[in-house]
Amino acid sequence: MKKRPKILVTNDDGIFAPGIRALVDVMKEIGDVLVVAPDRPQSGMGHAITVSDLLRLRKVDFNEGVEAYSCSGTPVDCVKLAIYQVLKGKPDLLVSGINHGPNNSINVLYSGTMSAAVEGALESIPSIGFSLMDHSLDADMSESKPIVRRVAESALDNGIPEGSCLNVNIPAVRATEMKGIRICRQAKAFWEDDFEARTDPFGSEYYWLRGEFKNYDKGEDTDVWALDHNYVSVVPIQYDMTAHHDIVTLNNWDI
Amino acid sequence: MKKRPKILVTNDDGIFAPGIRALVDVMKEIGDVLVVAPDRPQSGMGHAITVSDLLRLRKVDFNEGVEAYSCSGTPVDCVKLAIYQVLKGKPDLLVSGINHGPNNSINVLYSGTMSAAVEGALESIPSIGFSLMDHSLDADMSESKPIVRRVAESALDNGIPEGSCLNVNIPAVRATEMKGIRICRQAKAFWEDDFEARTDPFGSEYYWLRGEFKNYDKGEDTDVWALDHNYVSVVPIQYDMTAHHDIVTLNNWDI
Repeated sequence: MKKRPKILVTNDDGIFAPGIRALVDVMKEIGDVLVVAPDRPQSGMGHAITVSDLLRLRKVDFNEGVEAYSCSGTPVDCVKLAIYQVLKGKPDLLVSGINHGPNNSINVLYSGTMSAAVEGALESIPSIGFSLMDHSLDADMSESKPIVRRVAESALDNGIPEGSCLNVNIPAVRATEMKGIRICRQAKAFWEDDFEARTDPFGSEYYWLRGEFKNYDKGEDTDVWALDHNYVSVVPIQYDMTAHHDIVTLNNWDI
Repeated sequence: MKKRPKILVTNDDGIFAPGIRALVDVMKEIGDVLVVAPDRPQSGMGHAITVSDLLRLRKVDFNEGVEAYSCSGTPVDCVKLAIYQVLKGKPDLLVSGINHGPNNSINVLYSGTMSAAVEGALESIPSIGFSLMDHSLDADMSESKPIVRRVAESALDNGIPEGSCLNVNIPAVRATEMKGIRICRQAKAFWEDDFEARTDPFGSEYYWLRGEFKNYDKGEDTDVWALDHNYVSVVPIQYDMTAHHDIVTLNNWDI
């Protein structure tokens, strides 16, 4: 009989978000679960780590019969603490999410959910970030569960190519409306930002970041296209950020 | 006569770090400078943005005759505020640094300095992050200045390939010992982490992240190799994180 895999679960919405509970529900069915997740929402934290401050780790009752810790740091801190302090070793699988809101296209750079998965990849752990295309905290996660299970089991069976992790985004539609799972590339889509200026009660100005997501990519092989057409998108994400194709160009510079 | 370029300067060590002063010294010679930088150290912030809190922007006297603002947010917030609130347009060049400490190899993921440059790239602005291989706040930046100028002027002359920015690391040696500038790829090198556990005065445990940088890459075309041999390393960094070469493999999954 195959040994039950050890599965590390984290997220960026915080340990009390419904999304991580849905993810743990699924992972409990296929393996032994350890949860190390931020003690409060950490959306937009990207690959931030805590280098100038201390870190706290508190054992919490997850009401699920699983070992769980809340962490004062970022999602990437959670992964590091789980591996080097709690497990003192590597899990067989790392899953992050289910994020409340999309992490497709350029959002992969800003997303704490995905940065946790990238940190897993650079530790050579098969790692997956899951996101549902619905920002609300009471988003219905039930339709996502079978998808999450299929992708996680495939990753355990096949492994994930060395140097990469998976970015899985799930359309916020009923399972009967989902068209299937598509392997995609990251679309060339960006945030057109905008700041709303306000004045505080003491007369000083402050700003809120707002933005509109704009897709400039006509390809039908992108995550944005897949999600627009009710497919689940799966994008392999690598931590090697070298633009290898630009090296020849730069070698022609007279520098 | 060519118009003087508009140059946006930022960093992650904070607006009062000596590194950004050295960078502004050089940029003033070649263009009109705007500084928007964090009001305090923001090392290790990666591509974090402020989504759940307000942002402050304060005009500061930089003692250099340049327009300068300190920002309460992250390095990426600084870039967004500079473009969408201060300039209401794009500069001709974005430079970030000079970072006190290396941002070679995998550090590109954790580095606020480099994330600011990546944010510039996705706004189609020629963008460069500069780092000196010396963590100390009183590091000697004088030997770096001619390098910074050469790379910045080359970028203004040639442009930087669309979708990429440059990650420039400078060895902490005298100019006479520097061997030249090499175009490199990101080395496969990682942090082997470790947490130091301590007990606070109230009996609770807390942790400090420590780590040792380990290079597993024998290539002589990497940034780690170049820096070890007293070359300045220049790595083109892209914001497309898709592992395109893994798409075929994943398409063979029975999912």
